[in-house]
Amino acid sequence: MSVTDELLAANAEYAETFSGPLPMPPARHVAVVACMDARLNVYGALGLHEGEVHVIRNAGGVVSEDVIRSLAISQRLLGTREIVLIHHTDCGMLTFTDDEFRQAIQDDTGIKPPWAAEAFPDPETDVRQSIARVKASPFLPYKDAVRGFVFDVATGRLAEVS
Amino acid sequence: MSVTDELLAANAEYAETFSGPLPMPPARHVAVVACMDARLNVYGALGLHEGEVHVIRNAGGVVSEDVIRSLAISQRLLGTREIVLIHHTDCGMLTFTDDEFRQAIQDDTGIKPPWAAEAFPDPETDVRQSIARVKASPFLPYKDAVRGFVFDVATGRLAEVS
Repeated sequence: MSVTDELLAANAEYAETFSGPLPMPPARHVAVVACMDARLNVYGALGLHEGEVHVIRNAGGVVSEDVIRSLAISQRLLGTREIVLIHHTDCGMLTFTDDEFRQAIQDDTGIKPPWAAEAFPDPETDVRQSIARVKASPFLPYKDAVRGFVFDVATGRLAEVS
Repeated sequence: MSVTDELLAANAEYAETFSGPLPMPPARHVAVVACMDARLNVYGALGLHEGEVHVIRNAGGVVSEDVIRSLAISQRLLGTREIVLIHHTDCGMLTFTDDEFRQAIQDDTGIKPPWAAEAFPDPETDVRQSIARVKASPFLPYKDAVRGFVFDVATGRLAEVS
């Protein structure tokens, strides 16, 4: 049995007590952008329930062009007005450089990826970078309520980056 | 009080019973790629706990270049071996076309985005598209265990796309 099959078994259990459908637009009008890290349970850490906020996640929680695309759809079509950015301590993105990662892939496959890995030396600096990218985007209409945080994987607590 | 402040209050409560830190690599060696939709609680729907799987999410759950970047980091640096793709019923991405969305932004801002919105006409077709993009990527070393599903927002149940 693969892990995927185990997840499907858990899903069958979840569906037994599931009550839907809820409306498509997020009820709390928030979009969260967070790192993909396994230790960051966004619903748990923010006390969320189904139907409340959009959750966008990638390696690092960086504001990439794909995150801008997702936020544009979130704000323009589905009514979100606040953005919450979450990086975290002990992030994998602190353990390598973009050049090293792209070179390792080139050494392995013969092909250098056309994208940067988006590694960063500390999470606070990259939260500021992410806020700056949101603020600079011409495609997002709502940028007054954009706040960034670092999640501590030891304590489960969010610390705001000012 | 903003919604963000409410989420911070919920986080303080979460941290009270939080026990960490867990190891950085996902214990179950899986990366999930899912839509950002508020009704899709990935941890709940798959019975997950902190520390188990990477969760990557964007508008549509589409396999964009940024998702390939995240999966490459997930597999090459953090040991994941299975990929689970999750789209869902009643998706916002079914309600517009790429051309319409880009034109609406151009009409509003004067600037046409350089990216496609990645809208799609039905979730099953786009799950197949996403699997095909994963399989075609030269940057992902583990592509034998890639499965795609549609989450039903009415029942909470995952249906596999074959």
